[in-house]
Formats: sequence, structure tokens, C-alpha cells
Amino acid sequence: MTPVRYGMIGGGQGAFIGGVHRIAARIAGNWNLVAGAFSATPEKSRDSGAELSIDPARTYGSWPEMLAREAALPANVRIEAVSIVTPNHMHAAPAIAAMEAGFDVIIDKPLADTLANAQAIADAAARTGRRIAITHTYTGYPMIKQARSLVAGGKFGKVRRVAVKYTQDWLSRAADLENNKQAAWRVDPKQSGDAGAFGDIGTHAANLAEYITGERITRICAELTMMDGRQIDDDGAALFHLSGGGKGTLTASQILVGDMNDLAIDVYCDEAGLHWRQEEPNTLRIGYRDRPTEIWHAGANRTYLGGEILAIQRTPGGHPEGYLEAFANIYQAFGNSLRGVDEPGAYAGYATITDALAGMNFLRASLESSRQGAVWVDL
Amino acid sequence: MTPVRYGMIGGGQGAFIGGVHRIAARIAGNWNLVAGAFSATPEKSRDSGAELSIDPARTYGSWPEMLAREAALPANVRIEAVSIVTPNHMHAAPAIAAMEAGFDVIIDKPLADTLANAQAIADAAARTGRRIAITHTYTGYPMIKQARSLVAGGKFGKVRRVAVKYTQDWLSRAADLENNKQAAWRVDPKQSGDAGAFGDIGTHAANLAEYITGERITRICAELTMMDGRQIDDDGAALFHLSGGGKGTLTASQILVGDMNDLAIDVYCDEAGLHWRQEEPNTLRIGYRDRPTEIWHAGANRTYLGGEILAIQRTPGGHPEGYLEAFANIYQAFGNSLRGVDEPGAYAGYATITDALAGMNFLRASLESSRQGAVWVDL
Amino acid sequence: MTPVRYGMIGGGQGAFIGGVHRIAARIAGNWNLVAGAFSATPEKSRDSGAELSIDPARTYGSWPEMLAREAALPANVRIEAVSIVTPNHMHAAPAIAAMEAGFDVIIDKPLADTLANAQAIADAAARTGRRIAITHTYTGYPMIKQARSLVAGGKFGKVRRVAVKYTQDWLSRAADLENNKQAAWRVDPKQSGDAGAFGDIGTHAANLAEYITGERITRICAELTMMDGRQIDDDGAALFHLSGGGKGTLTASQILVGDMNDLAIDVYCDEAGLHWRQEEPNTLRIGYRDRPTEIWHAGANRTYLGGEILAIQRTPGGHPEGYLEAFANIYQAFGNSLRGVDEPGAYAGYATITDALAGMNFLRASLESSRQGAVWVDL
Amino acid sequence: MTPVRYGMIGGGQGAFIGGVHRIAARIAGNWNLVAGAFSATPEKSRDSGAELSIDPARTYGSWPEMLAREAALPANVRIEAVSIVTPNHMHAAPAIAAMEAGFDVIIDKPLADTLANAQAIADAAARTGRRIAITHTYTGYPMIKQARSLVAGGKFGKVRRVAVKYTQDWLSRAADLENNKQAAWRVDPKQSGDAGAFGDIGTHAANLAEYITGERITRICAELTMMDGRQIDDDGAALFHLSGGGKGTLTASQILVGDMNDLAIDVYCDEAGLHWRQEEPNTLRIGYRDRPTEIWHAGANRTYLGGEILAIQRTPGGHPEGYLEAFANIYQAFGNSLRGVDEPGAYAGYATITDALAGMNFLRASLESSRQGAVWVDL
Repeated sequence: MTPVRYGMIGGGQGAFIGGVHRIAARIAGNWNLVAGAFSATPEKSRDSGAELSIDPARTYGSWPEMLAREAALPANVRIEAVSIVTPNHMHAAPAIAAMEAGFDVIIDKPLADTLANAQAIADAAARTGRRIAITHTYTGYPMIKQARSLVAGGKFGKVRRVAVKYTQDWLSRAADLENNKQAAWRVDPKQSGDAGAFGDIGTHAANLAEYITGERITRICAELTMMDGRQIDDDGAALFHLSGGGKGTLTASQILVGDMNDLAIDVYCDEAGLHWRQEEPNTLRIGYRDRPTEIWHAGANRTYLGGEILAIQRTPGGHPEGYLEAFANIYQAFGNSLRGVDEPGAYAGYATITDALAGMNFLRASLESSRQGAVWVDL
Repeated sequence: MTPVRYGMIGGGQGAFIGGVHRIAARIAGNWNLVAGAFSATPEKSRDSGAELSIDPARTYGSWPEMLAREAALPANVRIEAVSIVTPNHMHAAPAIAAMEAGFDVIIDKPLADTLANAQAIADAAARTGRRIAITHTYTGYPMIKQARSLVAGGKFGKVRRVAVKYTQDWLSRAADLENNKQAAWRVDPKQSGDAGAFGDIGTHAANLAEYITGERITRICAELTMMDGRQIDDDGAALFHLSGGGKGTLTASQILVGDMNDLAIDVYCDEAGLHWRQEEPNTLRIGYRDRPTEIWHAGANRTYLGGEILAIQRTPGGHPEGYLEAFANIYQAFGNSLRGVDEPGAYAGYATITDALAGMNFLRASLESSRQGAVWVDL
Repeated sequence: MTPVRYGMIGGGQGAFIGGVHRIAARIAGNWNLVAGAFSATPEKSRDSGAELSIDPARTYGSWPEMLAREAALPANVRIEAVSIVTPNHMHAAPAIAAMEAGFDVIIDKPLADTLANAQAIADAAARTGRRIAITHTYTGYPMIKQARSLVAGGKFGKVRRVAVKYTQDWLSRAADLENNKQAAWRVDPKQSGDAGAFGDIGTHAANLAEYITGERITRICAELTMMDGRQIDDDGAALFHLSGGGKGTLTASQILVGDMNDLAIDVYCDEAGLHWRQEEPNTLRIGYRDRPTEIWHAGANRTYLGGEILAIQRTPGGHPEGYLEAFANIYQAFGNSLRGVDEPGAYAGYATITDALAGMNFLRASLESSRQGAVWVDL
Repeated sequence: MTPVRYGMIGGGQGAFIGGVHRIAARIAGNWNLVAGAFSATPEKSRDSGAELSIDPARTYGSWPEMLAREAALPANVRIEAVSIVTPNHMHAAPAIAAMEAGFDVIIDKPLADTLANAQAIADAAARTGRRIAITHTYTGYPMIKQARSLVAGGKFGKVRRVAVKYTQDWLSRAADLENNKQAAWRVDPKQSGDAGAFGDIGTHAANLAEYITGERITRICAELTMMDGRQIDDDGAALFHLSGGGKGTLTASQILVGDMNDLAIDVYCDEAGLHWRQEEPNTLRIGYRDRPTEIWHAGANRTYLGGEILAIQRTPGGHPEGYLEAFANIYQAFGNSLRGVDEPGAYAGYATITDALAGMNFLRASLESSRQGAVWVDL
């Protein structure tokens, strides 16, 4: 299977997530970065391309230029897909244009800054027939897939309660907005959309809850707050209902000191409780009432894991894989999908436009709930 | 200092918490069990007393009998205090009568089955001048006192967010109500009051949040549920506000499979996050943003602990103390208090009537919120 | 069953282990402290007795006095057993005299300062028919008994390798010998015997390995060292062989900074590896090759535990019991034994003279090996 | 900086470690795989090259062919280095030939099957002036570098004791030798050399101890054993001395059930104890005597880490990096070194021929010690 040739939009020098996408694609092994419009500043794009050993002729000064000139190249040379790693408010335009130019799209979450823009992307995908993957990274972890598989298998019964949190501390001080490129756009409603922490990481938490349970969040009562002088939420919590009747709590914050990237989830079913924490991603803890707690270990040679989980691991048990490998699993699955090989089962191996719209809807309802004083709002 | 002579009301054969109180008092060392009305069934009371090597002449068939006959004994022989370990609906009558007979009272939480009964106990205490301790066990843990001391010290700044949970699984099955003495009264509103899990363990969680932060819960939005066929809540979660402006989440459940006695709390201040879990009670984890996480260890020789924390430990670091020693610390502090030696600082070393009424108020507001569809209610 | 009346030898003010024995006996519930020769200094003994509310008439100025006067009391009043908590070199004389006076004996480990004295105690026990319990505390932990039971059950196969360590840091500095009553006698060969850390805690480690495996250490290659200016070992490690053919490593040290009371053991059998750590004593981790790791939890309601393990716990799962409860289990088993109720199975529930002599032999061989340059020595 | 063009020797279909090397090089980003002799079977080499999208013209049927034909290519096209991932007995010949053909070499550990072959490689390196990196993967972990840096800094004082273990379970059953390509050569003395587990993983353990302490192992007393029917050790343990006067223990085994890839090390200095475990590689625990234990977290934004440690991380704290990233750090440092950019300080960022010879010497002494009945042998 030849690697998918792709171009990147955004991700120039000083950006964080663009570099992560590139490493992920390299680990995946079925992607090949051959072009880029890495920055809105042409010189910066050029310098970034040079650093990455991209052919200067295919390092472009703007994404419209890239889309136009790549489309004009021979079919076996031009890019097949674009990776969009710009701030949220710059997702919709290039995504729609790329699909209209015939390229598939992989895009950082959340899908867009507004529900309207998200819907426009979805409409373009439907119109053009192109595929979109949204990088809900954390669903790329093997033990998350194992958890989903166990819940779906049914022998644990129904989901009773979910507790999910995603907490960080990098915005815990007022001064964190100055001199920090990551922070600047994320807390600016013009670039990030109306949601702050709930958009940046709360959507990951919600997505994880939905992914593992196989259900949707149907109602939410959310209270979002922010430090003095900020415009969008940096901290919040919610109660919610799941489509299967279970209940849940969700916390998303970027001001909780000492928490680095603390995404953690508990899913309680009738007969077992499943527990996972992103900072130690290679174990899944399962508690029972009448027998010892189990620790399931990641590892390509742990034969008790599901076959599809074994297949996405690169190393035997005890050789820890991490965040970059989880991210690589998203790229790998999307790359396979573009080559016609889909993950077994209903799930594509990556979040699709449907999941992304669910995430946008979660954000819409959370903001609405909070604005009205933390009342219940339907999704 | 001679031990405090006490009599027990309740706690006969087959009961759980009575035995815990007795061991706690023995570990404390400053209490001496000399009388008892261990059961409403006289023979059972007698058998229980015999098992405990209590003088048969002071093993009574009912608590009114015990109060009357003990009061008639010489001052240096008769009991000085009673320990009440009956189901919630049988707290008020003996507590009030005991105080009126001149005895101090130590009583299992929650204070009473109804707010009215709780208030009646408080009124009796005020009227008689007797002291009451409520066994909010978990505040007896050294590392909880250390956490409270650190927050009160002020160098961590204000409290931003609290996440507290208390979850168990012993009522996770419909059949758990049958043939289980502990379960039977706890889920019967006539014996337990209107609250189930929120009363039994949610009050511990709320008390712990208030104890560590030194603040009060001022508003709550709670959703309590129960399994089909049950009359009172066995599972629930809430958002809440603290008097200092911080926010919080609280979960209390007795149907979450695999959780044994999982009381855990995170308290995030401006400059540090404090984390404690009851099942591994001898460590307090403190996360910072700019320096390594710290693990504070319990131990009578860990000189970095506060002096008052060192004083309530029996063994050096690495010799784990547990639930029974935490419970003993409540007895020890109350015993000392009755002998005129109070814990340094504002806190008595045990929960008082004020804390107990706060707990009852928390329950009242939680139930009210939930009944109205999980709306916000002031405490 | 009426409690066993006992007198204590040693354990006056300022001592550590005497207080632990007394709390353990109180938790056990089947012991009653009624007499004591708490110190070689009569006034100090008296003061200690007063603090403990012991009848002044039965607080003695020396242990010979106690033995003589107690033996003269009526059978239903006088002590039935003595608890010896003096430094090692003062174990043999009172133990032998007590047995000759008709009292059973519970004694802190190691049995004696020299092999000759240990043998003299054993001979006295054989001659008088009295019982002796040695407080190898750590075998009192429920999960240790569970581990022993699982290994004995045979389905894990033979023992392949054991790794046991017991490390502390309280002697890590040269100055630690000054002004520390615990340290002073432990590092003085005249009081402690020829062994330092290996005698004080290495014997616990060896005993634990033998207890869980049900085997004996047969050969050892040990290297013991000490800081400049000390007379006996404060640090050492060894390779050893087990009677069943397995191999092992053992480390015992009191100079390893940051380790509080870090007794930990790994026992690898053909089909499973068992892991336990004293500082978190309520879990037993069992690793397998073809299925998830298991965490067995202590708790009086964890029905998958062996019946005899359930019986020695006071609280349900998740209510941590600790060091004092483990110690209490030794007292409780010995008390039951004195009343004719022995633990099911071959093991008495406490270490006997046979185990104690094995410990002395382990010490003898370790010292001999080390003195000869860490060569192999048979036990 | 343009990537280093390299060819791989070994690592064809069905091999494990070759794939790991390739991913590591891709993550590093400064390597480009352009040629390969992936197997001794030409068709298999071709198929492997095709799978990897290597130019068929540069996929060779044997390594001599690759060296000869690549050397004939223009300087700006031909490979600059080779990566050797064959079984141990096939290290020396291609390594020496590659250096003589003007290529630098990166080679899986241990350096060779015999001390003579290792020395021959070292001689060739000295003769040709080419560089060699040995992939002692675990020194690529950021927290290991942090530990080394802290010990070297001196404020923790001298090293007192090291405990290192590396244990696995994949050879725990007699049948594991059949049908397992990884196992087959590793347990065959003709392919692996005289050492089994001690060569395969014991050398990693020894290297890690030497790397963190900055000292050398000077004496060892080792006992190596094997299951019935095997020819080389699959399990063993040792006592050792360090050049600075400290003592140590080392265990290496591939038959300990439940241990996946359990490399763990404790380094005790005068004033602190450092603890690290490979399966949770992103934390370094440091214990003190007079203050709380510290947990140092990996992460490109944890400013308390040393600058050189920050520089080798790709993601902020809480985004776990793992085994592949540690491996990538070795490639990255060697690639930088080949481009003239060396890691600050004395250490090259990768194990050199000196470290590799130390490893071979460790093996020699361990085997000699064990053969003589576990006596002390100098290194």
C-alpha cells in the first residue's frame, strides 16, 4: 500500500499541534508529507518547509495557492489529502475549498469555531463526497478501544454512570495569555469560537464518553466560568444524561494547578466499572463486585486483548506507547480508509463528521445552559 | 488522665458500626466501655454485653433503663457519656434524653433522620450544656488534617474548585436489600430519613469538602436517582458553590460496581492542587505548576508535618494507620475535650453540632433540588 | 471467651514497640493488660503503669518481682501470659523465668540476641510445655495470608524466584545514633546481638519469604556493611536458595534515604507472580501471562478471599486496616490459641519457636557469609 | 540540517526490532531510510523493501552487495550510515565492513556475541575513525537523563546502593522456544553468544545503573540458571560493587510470569533515593528523609527539568511519550552527532563503543562468576 501524499495547512514554526500531526503521520507510516502552506506569512511558510525538507516548489505562500497548484499536478504526483492544523476559525474555509478541489481532509478538533461553519463543512463533505477525519486523539489509544469493545460486547450490562474530566493548568495564571501563541488564539473568541476550555478539551472529554459508551449525550446542565479579565470559559463542570438512560458528570478546566493533561474517565456498568487515565494510558482498570479488580495491559502480545486492538499496537506489552502513537493510530486508520481498508466494525477508526457535529452540538448546549444560569438544555 | 466511662446505645450482635466504635475507643485509649443497651431486644443486649465482658448488672434491656440506672450510680462509677450507634431515626430520642440525664454524647452521622429531629438535638445540647461529637470519621485521618492546615495557611491562595466523590457498590444489585441488616434500614425512609446514599455517604463527602476548605457549601444543583423498586436515592451527583466563591462537584453512590469505599477529594487552590483518597489514606499528593509534585506521607516521625498532625499518629512513617485509627482519633479528641484538653486551633478535633446541622442542611437542599428537577437551591 | 490476662515486661515511657503491643492487644479484644514491669527503673515503671490505669499494686519494679508476686495470686486473678518487649539481649532471662513460673509468652522478634540464648528459650519451652509466640508482625496482614494460601493451593505451580526487601532510612546519618533510644540499643552489639539491620528487619524479610512460600532458606551469600564508626551492619543484600529449588534476593537496610518502612516482596511461581508491599498492605497484585493482572483487595466482605482471611478482618473492603491491625491479628491468634481455638490449617496464626529458630539461623549464616567475604553458607 | 541517509541490515518481515528502529528514525526526523539488505534471503529482502516503499534499485539481496553498490553511488546520494538489526552473532562482520566502506554505524545491543568480536568492532572503529552508536534504548528516556543529571550534580552525595531489575515472562514456558523467531535466536548460543537473558536484557540493566550513577561496575557475584532443556541462562541475579564504593543488586530474567518488560531501578544516594520504572517512564520519584517525596514529570514544558532534558521531548507534560520516543532520542542524538551537533556534557546522547565494551565485560564476568558457583569476579 503506497503512502497517502498530503499537504499541510498551518503548523509552521512555533506552532505545537502541526508538529504532532507530522510525527503522527510518520509513525503511522502510510502518509507522506509532500507539500505545505505552513503559514499565512509566505517567508515563514518557506522556512518551515525547508526545515522539513519539503520540495521548495511545493512549499506555498497560502493555502488557496497550494490547492490550486497541487490540483494542477499529475494525478500520481499531486497531494491526495490535506491536514488542517490552523486555529479553529480557520478550519472551515480551507476544508471546504480542499474538498471542492478533490482532496480528502484530516482536521484538528473541534471541527470549527461556530456551529454554522461546522455545518458548512459537513454540507461540503456531503456535496463533494470527500472524506473527513477529525483528530479526537484519545480514541486512538488501544485501551480506549478495548474499553469500547467491552462495553459494546454487552456482558457488563447497561451504562449507569460516567465521570469524565479533562483538566490542565497552563492557563492558571492571569499572565498566561501574554507571550503564548497557543494561549492567545485559544482564549480569543474571534479565533477559537465562543467556547474556551469546553471547546478545546471539553469536547475531547464528551467525545470519549460517547465513544466508550456508544451512546450520545442528550441533556446537559453546565456551569462555565472564567478568570477576571478573560472573555471565554477556562473552567467548568456539568451534569449530563446519556441516551441509554445513564447519568454523568464532566469537568473541563485549564486553570487547575498541578494537572498537566489529566483526561480521565470512569464508566460504570451494571456488572463492572471501567477506569482509564490518559497520563498512564497503557492500562485499563476494571472493577468487579465479586472478584478481583483486573488490570488490562496494552501490548501487541497481550493475547487477551481484542484482535483489532492488538493490530494497532507496535510493541509488545511493557514497551509503553503514548500520545504520539495514539495520534498515529488516527492517521493510520484514515490512511487505510482512503486506501479502502476500514477498521472492522461500525466505527471508522477515526472521528467522522457525525462525531464532530455531535461535539459542536455539545458545545452549543453547554454554552446555552451556562448562559441561562446552569439550567438543563437538550442536545 | 483517667479514661472516660461510657455506655453504648445500639451496636449489638450483627451490627457493624457499633463494633467499629468500640475498637476505635479502645485504640484511643482514653475511653472505657462500662455499660450498654446494645439492642431493643433485652436478651440480645444481654448476650452482646456478655461477649464484651461488660458487667451484667450494667447491661440494660433498653436505653431509658440505662440512662435512669446509671444516673443513680455514684458519680465516680456511673457513665460520663453515651455512644449512640442506632439507625438514624433512633438518634434523637436517646441523644436528648442522655443529655438531659447529664451525659455527653457521641453519635454516628448523620445527626438525625430529619432536620426537625436534628434541630431538637441541637436545642437540647444548648439547653443542657452537654457536648456532642458526630463521628465524621474521615476528618480523623492525619493527612486530611494536614490538607486542611495547608489550605488554612493561605500560601496556596483561594480555593478554585473541589471535586469530591464517595462511591460504593454494596447496593448495586436489586437483591441487596434482602437479608442484609445494614442495607435494610439504610434504604427505608422510615429508619434512615428521606435521603439514602446522599444521607449515608454524601454527607461525609460534603463534610470533607467543607472541612478541608474551611468554607461552607452555599448552593447546590443535585440529581438523585434510585434503582427500580427502591424508595430513596442510591446514586446521585451535584454541582455546588462554596462560600469563598469556588465551584465544586460531588458524587455519592452505592451502586457503582467495583468501588468499595471510594471517598476521594481534589481541592484546587490558586497555587496548588491537593489530592487524597481514603483507600490509600497515608499520602497526600500536592501538585504544583512550576515544581515537582509532592507526596506527603503520614507518620509520627515525618517532621515536615504539622505538629498537631504528628501528635495524632501512633506509628512512624511507613507503618500504615487506617480507618480504625482515624475513627479512634475522633474518640480521642472528644475524650480529651471532655477532660478539658482541646485540639489546638478553632476546630475541636471532631465534628460538632454546627457541622452536623450543616450536613442536615446539605441533605435538605440536595433533596429539594432533585425533586424539582435538579435546579439550584440555596443552603 | 474471656480475655487473656497478661503482664508486660518493658515498654515503659519513651519506648516504641511496647505501646504498639498494647494497642494491638486492645484491638484484638481478647487480651487484658493487668500487670506490668515496664522498666528496670521502679519509679519509671510505676509512672508508666499509672498512665495506663494499671492497678498500682500490680505495677512492679522488676520483672522477677512481677513473676513471683503474680504467681502467688489466685488462679482466676493472676496473669496468664507475659508480653516481653525489651531489647533483644533482655529476652531470654525473663522469657525462661516466665515459662518456669507457668506463664505463656509473647515476645518481640528476633527471639534473642544470640543463637545460644534463642536455643535456651526453646529448651525452656520444651521443658515447661508453655507456648511462645514471636511477633513477626507482617504475617498478620490478611493479604499475606491470602498469598500464602494461594501458593500453598498449588495451582500456581512451584516457586521460581523470590525478591524481598526491607529498607528504612532512620539510620541514614551518622548522627542518628545520638539521642535516639530506639537507635541506641539496636546498633549496640551488646544489646542487639551481632546483627544490626539484618537482625532488626532482615529477619522479618526472611520470615515473610518463608511464610508465603511455605519453604525454608537453605543457602545464602550475604554482604553486610555499615557506615564508618558503626559496629554492626546497617545495610546489606544477599542471594539465597529456597528448599524447593527456587532462587531469591534479599535486601535489608536502615540507611536508604526516602524509604520509610519499605518491606516488599515478589514471589514468582510457574504460572503467576504475586506482589505485595507493606506500605499499601490491603492489595495483593497477581500477574499472569495470558490474562489481565489481578488486584485482590482486603475486606471482610470480599467474598473471593479465603474464609480464614475474611475472618481476621474487622471492616469491609475499602476501609483500610493497617500495621496495628496486622499486629492485633498476631495477638488475637495467640489469644485464641491459649483458649484452645487454633487457626485452621497447619499454621498457628503466629510465628512459633520453630520459625524463630529459623530466623536466628538465617542471621547466623548471613553474618558468617559476610565475614568470609560474601561466600555461600548453608543454613 | 538534512536528514542522514541510511541503509538497514536485517529487519525484514517477521522481525521485531528492525521495525522499531525504523519508526524511531522516523520520529527522530533526522534520518531517511533509502536502502536496505533486509534479509539473507534476497526475495524476502525485496518484499520487505517494497513494503517500506524503498527504491527497488536500492533494496539489496545481501549486505556485502549493499555496501559495495552504495559506496559506488555519488556522495550526495549514497547512504551515510547503516543500521544493523541482525541477531548478535551477525553484528561484527557487517559492522566492520561498513566502517571500512566509509559508513557510520548504529547497532542494536549487545555489541556482539563474543568479547573477541566486540573488540574487533572497536578496533575497526579506531582504525577507520567511523562512529558507532549502540542502542541502549532506555538511556533515551528523558527521566533517566534527569536522574543522571541530578546524581552528577552532586548535591545528593555519593551513591550508596543500586537495585536494578529487568524481568520479562515471554520465555516462562518450555514451549516458548518453538515457533517464535525472537526466541529462537536469542536462546541459541551460536546466534546469541554464551549469555541468554543476561546478554539480552541484563546488559540493559547494567548499562542503566552505570549511566545514572556515572560509575562502573567493578566486581560481581552472579548466579545464572536456566530451565531444563535450555542451553543458556533465562534467569539470574547478582550482587555487585560500584567504582565509587556503593553496592548493588541486579536481576535479569525472562521466565518471571506477569512481568512484561519490567526494567526498574532504585539509586540511593546519601541524601535522596531516585526511583524509575520503564513501564511508567514519564515520572521520576525522589524520596528524601526530611521532606515530602517528589514526583518529577516528563514534559517539554516542565521548566524545573534540566534544559537538555526539555530539549529531547516532543510534547508538553501529561502527553505521555514512550518506548518509541526514547528509541528515537538515540537516533536523534546520533544523527545530530553525525551532523556535528553533540549533546552538551561528556555524554554523547547515545551509548558508544566504550559503553558497549563495558557491557561485554559485564557479561564476561557474570558468566565466569556463575560458572564457578557464584563467586566474586572482577570486571
